[in-house]
Amino acid sequence: MQASLAELVAALGGELVGDADCRVDAIAPLERAGPSHISFLAQARLLPQLATTAAACVVVRPEHRDAASARGAAIVTADPYLYFARLTQWWAQRVRARPETGIHPSAVIEPVRDGPSASVGPLAYIGARRRIAAGACWRRRPPRRDAEVGAGTRLGPRVVFERGCRIGARGLVQAGAVIGGDGFGFAPDQGSWVKIEQLGAVRIGDDVEIGANTCIDRGALDDTVIDDGVKLDNLIQIGHNCHIGAHTAMAGCTGVAGSTRIGRHCTAGGSAMILGHLEIADHVHISAATVVSRSIRKPGHYSGFFPMDDNARWEKNAATLKQLHTLRDRIRALENKP
Amino acid sequence: MQASLAELVAALGGELVGDADCRVDAIAPLERAGPSHISFLAQARLLPQLATTAAACVVVRPEHRDAASARGAAIVTADPYLYFARLTQWWAQRVRARPETGIHPSAVIEPVRDGPSASVGPLAYIGARRRIAAGACWRRRPPRRDAEVGAGTRLGPRVVFERGCRIGARGLVQAGAVIGGDGFGFAPDQGSWVKIEQLGAVRIGDDVEIGANTCIDRGALDDTVIDDGVKLDNLIQIGHNCHIGAHTAMAGCTGVAGSTRIGRHCTAGGSAMILGHLEIADHVHISAATVVSRSIRKPGHYSGFFPMDDNARWEKNAATLKQLHTLRDRIRALENKP
Amino acid sequence: MQASLAELVAALGGELVGDADCRVDAIAPLERAGPSHISFLAQARLLPQLATTAAACVVVRPEHRDAASARGAAIVTADPYLYFARLTQWWAQRVRARPETGIHPSAVIEPVRDGPSASVGPLAYIGARRRIAAGACWRRRPPRRDAEVGAGTRLGPRVVFERGCRIGARGLVQAGAVIGGDGFGFAPDQGSWVKIEQLGAVRIGDDVEIGANTCIDRGALDDTVIDDGVKLDNLIQIGHNCHIGAHTAMAGCTGVAGSTRIGRHCTAGGSAMILGHLEIADHVHISAATVVSRSIRKPGHYSGFFPMDDNARWEKNAATLKQLHTLRDRIRALENKP
Repeated sequence: MQASLAELVAALGGELVGDADCRVDAIAPLERAGPSHISFLAQARLLPQLATTAAACVVVRPEHRDAASARGAAIVTADPYLYFARLTQWWAQRVRARPETGIHPSAVIEPVRDGPSASVGPLAYIGARRRIAAGACWRRRPPRRDAEVGAGTRLGPRVVFERGCRIGARGLVQAGAVIGGDGFGFAPDQGSWVKIEQLGAVRIGDDVEIGANTCIDRGALDDTVIDDGVKLDNLIQIGHNCHIGAHTAMAGCTGVAGSTRIGRHCTAGGSAMILGHLEIADHVHISAATVVSRSIRKPGHYSGFFPMDDNARWEKNAATLKQLHTLRDRIRALENKP
Repeated sequence: MQASLAELVAALGGELVGDADCRVDAIAPLERAGPSHISFLAQARLLPQLATTAAACVVVRPEHRDAASARGAAIVTADPYLYFARLTQWWAQRVRARPETGIHPSAVIEPVRDGPSASVGPLAYIGARRRIAAGACWRRRPPRRDAEVGAGTRLGPRVVFERGCRIGARGLVQAGAVIGGDGFGFAPDQGSWVKIEQLGAVRIGDDVEIGANTCIDRGALDDTVIDDGVKLDNLIQIGHNCHIGAHTAMAGCTGVAGSTRIGRHCTAGGSAMILGHLEIADHVHISAATVVSRSIRKPGHYSGFFPMDDNARWEKNAATLKQLHTLRDRIRALENKP
Repeated sequence: MQASLAELVAALGGELVGDADCRVDAIAPLERAGPSHISFLAQARLLPQLATTAAACVVVRPEHRDAASARGAAIVTADPYLYFARLTQWWAQRVRARPETGIHPSAVIEPVRDGPSASVGPLAYIGARRRIAAGACWRRRPPRRDAEVGAGTRLGPRVVFERGCRIGARGLVQAGAVIGGDGFGFAPDQGSWVKIEQLGAVRIGDDVEIGANTCIDRGALDDTVIDDGVKLDNLIQIGHNCHIGAHTAMAGCTGVAGSTRIGRHCTAGGSAMILGHLEIADHVHISAATVVSRSIRKPGHYSGFFPMDDNARWEKNAATLKQLHTLRDRIRALENKP
């Protein structure tokens, strides 16, 4: 596909500096961009690449207007990274087949309420309605409905979306994700485990993206809740009864154990592990591979992983670590020495 | 659904204190329970909630009989959490459609021996029988049989259960789990890897539950073995030739590398990593996110993860950690100073 | 199946010492091998088992020829472990049904170019060709082709192989793997996340094995690349735009965040986590559960996980660890004391 800069600016805004008829045929990072590409400068540390890039056009912030236009066309906008995101969306609409809506004939679907233009991918499975016993009476909650898929939401190939679960509008559940599996709940009984039936479901808000092979368990009594705008990467485990606040994003391989409540606008790096029954405030940022073992009441950036080292040095330090408490005592003894 | 306390006690036992005709319509935790709910007191730390809960009835241990009945109905039993588990099962049988037995028409099944009332979910796959060469003679082991699924065992949607694997009675394999993939075995050969064909299978006992998207690899020569009553959460990896002892339970995202033998009645917290070729005794409890890098011969509770901290403090401590061995030497030098 | 030692040596080479007509019916490790088994001695630490094994024949290195033949038949070869790998392959060809080639009728396939003898498993899904707009012009890259599966490559049951992705010859993608899901890319916009469409694909070389439920994301602009001979275990996450060099092998539950470039002939132990935008040199070996948070320019062995301990001792040491920086200052103060 080719697009002129005039077309881009007409669609996406920004101030164009340079030749409006210039045509670009791909988006590329600064250092790999060629003369038919459009690029963007989103991070200050990449500023040196601006002078040397071969890109036909670079999207920049106002303060880089002159540097950018000195070398070719530029689009000036307050947030080039956001502009880039919108550009990829505009581009994708033109180069990709429009995804079909409706239910792929290979999917296995029990009764489901689906919004207009929702789509269910090949070989996906959507679970059955619960049977509501005759004369049933639920005072505080309406009877469980069928699974619900909101307008414009896409369930990818081989997604499992179990009975009674619900997802709002404009969502994307990627291939192989399992929504509404049984939570991990057992009561010990003389050395064996007695299953706690998981009677809740999973409620997912609007504009949520869930990665490939990620699992979100249904609640034990109440529902597991994923609020609007949450983004979950691949291979994430969300335990039963968790509540993930709006616009929180988590990277791949992260685990959240049961009944933990995570605030809004939080992030977690890859392979983080958040233990169960905790409360995490809004605007908390967890580094990759960090184990969160206590509640976090204060917004901020939290970390905790063992720093990597050459194996020999790591072995020495790890061995010493097992005596750290003793070392502290020895320091204290030295300090108390007259 | 509604049930009277009389019905509950008739079905599940316990001593009822209070109005036998009182009807409840949901199970709820103490703090969220309303006047039509039944709740339970399983942990001493929740005792203060007993006085304030609005629950119609609370399941309690004998020592809390008076406190519970002072505020409404109570069911007195030795183990309220176990009672709760059984109550969820009783409840689920009444509010849920009885799961269909048999094989979903969308599943792809090679010859399989399945027990009475076993079920295979939509879009599941069960692998083929091995071809046994004419004149084959296996002296110590019977010829490999078809995949076997025991009585009452349910394979969820999209489960893969590969050739020659076996699971006992009353099991549950949740959506997307892969039982019997090839173990990860390669011999190095001049910088590339030569595959070691995985000739074993997976043998799973009775009453085993396996979580969504969990993977259990087939053995290289012998079988990978999961004993009776084992409970595995979602997204767990069990390497080839492992042996997981009876009634051991592991939380999500845990990995067990090949040929490790874990005892009976063990537990592992989420994201634990147990290295290969180890022996873990019975009754060993591993904390979440702990790396088990040596065999554990003694029952007990073992841990090892970096404590989370504010990022700035973590960075300082992590940097210092890389000199820990040196610090020890400096302490020794100070101690030896005359 | 039974095979004579003469047949084995004819097929796989090695020097036979002992009775060529001796027949074996299984491969077994030294300590469990019986009189109808063939075994192998690959590790020096297992040498004591050589004298006591009941195996009919043992595959050994030249220096163990005498010890091996003193107790029965032996096959002498330079690399017994490699011989063992080839023996399992030879064995598997004889005891297993030849895998069918072609596309299983239950798979859902959009246009795909598949090599001779490629196979696509039951309930797998291969994504559609991209629509190329009329008049499209790609100067530096050819238009995206359909998904491509090379000669002899097997896609297991329920594999998802998304649009435009490519895998070379003789590969194996195990059950449930998802190749070409969207990478995790979003631009922040006033507290919510704007999706960055993932316009790249995944390119996988020849002789690559990918484990069950592993996920490899498509690139944002360029492709995610997995070079020839790479071996990935189960439940691994490879982020968008990564490049994994030839013959690198990674154990289960490992995560690689986006845009990281890993060299050739590297290994990573299970549950390792490699952060994004890093460069890892050739011949780098990462221990299990190690977090790689900076680029590694030098071949070698790198580690970093908290050593496991008895829980009580771990708690003490972990608590002290949070004051480590302070301890260093106290040591310094002591050293400076006159």
